[in-house]
Amino acid sequence: MKIYADNAATTKMSQRAIQAMLPYMSEIYGNPSSLHSEGQRAAEALADARRRIAGLLGAQENEILFTSGGSESDNQAILSAARLGERAGKKHIISSGIEHHAVLHTLDRLKKEGFEITLLDTGEDGILQADQVAGAIRPDTCLVTVMYANNEIGTIQPIKEIGAVCREKGVLFHTDGVQAAGHIPIHVEEDHIDMLSISAHKFHGPKGIGVLYARKGIPLISLIEGGAQERGKRAGTENIPAIMGMAEAFEEALEHLEEKNEKLTGLRERLIDGLSEIPHCILNGDRERRLPGNVSFCFEGIEGEAMLLLLDDKGICASSGSACTSGSLEPSHVLLAIGRPHEIAHGSLRLSLSEENTEEEVDYIISGVKEVTAYLRGISPVWRALENGEQKFIL
Amino acid sequence: MKIYADNAATTKMSQRAIQAMLPYMSEIYGNPSSLHSEGQRAAEALADARRRIAGLLGAQENEILFTSGGSESDNQAILSAARLGERAGKKHIISSGIEHHAVLHTLDRLKKEGFEITLLDTGEDGILQADQVAGAIRPDTCLVTVMYANNEIGTIQPIKEIGAVCREKGVLFHTDGVQAAGHIPIHVEEDHIDMLSISAHKFHGPKGIGVLYARKGIPLISLIEGGAQERGKRAGTENIPAIMGMAEAFEEALEHLEEKNEKLTGLRERLIDGLSEIPHCILNGDRERRLPGNVSFCFEGIEGEAMLLLLDDKGICASSGSACTSGSLEPSHVLLAIGRPHEIAHGSLRLSLSEENTEEEVDYIISGVKEVTAYLRGISPVWRALENGEQKFIL
Repeated sequence: MKIYADNAATTKMSQRAIQAMLPYMSEIYGNPSSLHSEGQRAAEALADARRRIAGLLGAQENEILFTSGGSESDNQAILSAARLGERAGKKHIISSGIEHHAVLHTLDRLKKEGFEITLLDTGEDGILQADQVAGAIRPDTCLVTVMYANNEIGTIQPIKEIGAVCREKGVLFHTDGVQAAGHIPIHVEEDHIDMLSISAHKFHGPKGIGVLYARKGIPLISLIEGGAQERGKRAGTENIPAIMGMAEAFEEALEHLEEKNEKLTGLRERLIDGLSEIPHCILNGDRERRLPGNVSFCFEGIEGEAMLLLLDDKGICASSGSACTSGSLEPSHVLLAIGRPHEIAHGSLRLSLSEENTEEEVDYIISGVKEVTAYLRGISPVWRALENGEQKFIL
Repeated sequence: MKIYADNAATTKMSQRAIQAMLPYMSEIYGNPSSLHSEGQRAAEALADARRRIAGLLGAQENEILFTSGGSESDNQAILSAARLGERAGKKHIISSGIEHHAVLHTLDRLKKEGFEITLLDTGEDGILQADQVAGAIRPDTCLVTVMYANNEIGTIQPIKEIGAVCREKGVLFHTDGVQAAGHIPIHVEEDHIDMLSISAHKFHGPKGIGVLYARKGIPLISLIEGGAQERGKRAGTENIPAIMGMAEAFEEALEHLEEKNEKLTGLRERLIDGLSEIPHCILNGDRERRLPGNVSFCFEGIEGEAMLLLLDDKGICASSGSACTSGSLEPSHVLLAIGRPHEIAHGSLRLSLSEENTEEEVDYIISGVKEVTAYLRGISPVWRALENGEQKFIL
C-alpha cells in the first residue's frame, strides 16, 4: 500500500488543473505583453484567470498579483507594509510565534533594520485571540501578519476577528493563507483582510505559482524589477500555464467544499482517535479549530525522523512538521511555541490528508504508527529509562 | 497562414520539454524537502536536473540556483554583487545602455542608494568593446553586468573578452544570458563568467523557471526569505516539473546547435535581404554578430504598432522590440542607445525566428512587410511630407 499523507507539504496535481495548463504550453503560448493575436490570446487567458481567482476570494481582479508562490507573496506583502510604515515613522509589526519561516525570516530581516517585532503567544491550543492582537497594537504598529491556518499543527486562527480589530485600529493586516486557501473558505472582504498569500501547489495546483492579494490602494513594493508586468509590481513574463492551472485547481478545490470537508473531517477524527490510543502521545493544536485534513501528534520517547523512515518503509508518506525545515536538527519552532518541551517536539508526526485518502488508508496509518512507535520505543534506551522509572514521563 | 516570428518574446514549448514535465505533476509530485520516498524521488530529479544544466554550461552543480526566471536571476545577481561591493566600500557598477530592464531598473534602484552606474555606449552596431570595459573599471568597481545577446537587436557581445578583462582586474562579471542560452554556446569557464541569468521559456522550455549561475564562493543574497531551499538562497518549494522541463529543453536546444543555427542564419539572411529592398529602412545591430534568429529593422515614416497590427491581420506575429515594454509609448531605449532618432525608433520591427520557421514563411513575411509598409506610408501625412520634400528623409 502506498499512502500519501503529506498534503501540507505539497499535493498531487489534479487532472483538471493539468488539462487547464496544457493548451498554454504549445497552443496559446504567446507572451501576454505582445500586441499580436498570439499575445492577446494569452493576455485574455491571464485576465480570465485573474477574474476567476478574484471572484473566489471576494476580491477585485486588479487586487490579484501573480507571484512565484507563497513565500514570495509573504515576503512582498510584509516588506511592502514595512516600507509604507517606515515612511510614516511606524516600525512596529505584530505576528505570532507559529508563523511560517517565509514570514518569520522576513521579520528577522526587518528586525535587523530596526523594526520592532512582537510575536504573540498562541498558548498550547495554537490559537491566537483577537484580543491579544488588539492589546498589542501601538500607535507605531504598521502591520499585523497572522497566518490563516498553521502548516504544522493545522490550527485555524480567528482571522475575521483579528481582521476586524486591525481594520478598526487602522493597521494593515496580512495573512499567510497558504495552508488555508482551497481548504477552508476565505473571503477577503468578510474577513477584513488587507493582504493575503496563496500557493497553488497546496491545493492540487501547479508548483511555482501563487497569488498576493492586496487591497486596492495598498502600494506594493516590487521584489523583482524589470518589465512592467503585473502593473509594475512583479517583473518577468507571466507564467500563463501555471496561472491557468492555479485558477482551475482553486475552482475545483472550492467546489462542494463543505461536503469534501465533512468527509475529510471524518477521516481526521478517525485518525486522531486511533492514534490517541498510543500511550504517552499528545495531539498538537486545538482539536476542533484545525484544518479538516491535519493531524499532528507528539510521541514521547520517539525520534521523529526514525519514525518517518519506518513509516515510509510501510508506504506511508508523512512528515515531522514543515517540509521546508526538514533535515534540520532543530525541533519545530511551532511545537516549541505551543509549549512542547524539546524532547517531546522531536517526536512529532504530521499527517495531512486530502480528499483522495480513504478510511482504509487511515486504518492502515493507525496500525502503522502503532507498530512503528512500539518498535522504536522497544529499542530506545530513553524509553526503557522511562519505563523503569529512572526518568519521568512528560506525557 | 499563421507565422510565429516572436521567439525572443517567448517560445512554444517543445514536446520533449512538456513530456519531461508531466510525470512530475501527478506521479513524482513530492516536495523534495520531504524525507519520505515521494520527496526523495523529487529530490533526485532536482539533483539530476541541476547536474544536467550545470554540465551544459560548464558549471558545477552547486553553482546552479533555480529561480522563477530571467528577471529574478538578474535582480538577484546584481543585488548580490552590490551588497558584496558595499561591504568593501565599492559602489561603482559598469553596464551598457542596451541592457534589459530587469538589469537597468535594478541598477536604477542601486543608483538611488548611492551607487554610481556607468552605462557604456555600444555605438551604432550595438556591440561593446572589451577595451571600453577595461577603461571604465575603477578601484571601486564591484560589478560589470553586460548582456550576452540583446533581446531587441540581437547583437552578441564579446563576452569572453569582457569576462577576461573582469577576471584580470578582479571585478565580478554578470551576464544576462536570457536571449543567448539555448541559442548560442555559453561556457561559464571559457567565457570567464561569474554570474549568468537564464530563462527557460526563451528556448522552448516552460515559463516561470530560470537559473542563476553563480561561481562557487560568490555570496548570494536571498530575494525571497523562508525555507532553506536552494541552499538558503531562494525560499519556496522547488518547481520540479518546470525544472525538469527546463533541463530537457536546454539539452534539446543545444543538440545539433551548429546545424540548426546554420539553417536559422540562412533564414535570417534571406529575411534581411528581402526587407532591405524596402526603401528608407535600416537594419538594427551588426549584421554578422547577431543571434541566428534575430532580424530588427527600422522603417522611416512608419508607426511600429500599426505595422504590428496589420502584420497580425496577415497572420504574422512580430514585435516592435521587447515584449516587456510593449504598450509603452516610449520608443525603445535600445534603439535610442544605438543612435536611432526618436521618429525612426518608433518604426521598429523585430522578427525573431526559430528553427520551426521555413523559407516559405520568410518569403511570406517579406511580402507582408512590404505590403504593410507601403500601405501605411500611403496613408501617412508624414510620409507625403517626406515625399513632397517638405521634410527631409533621415534614412
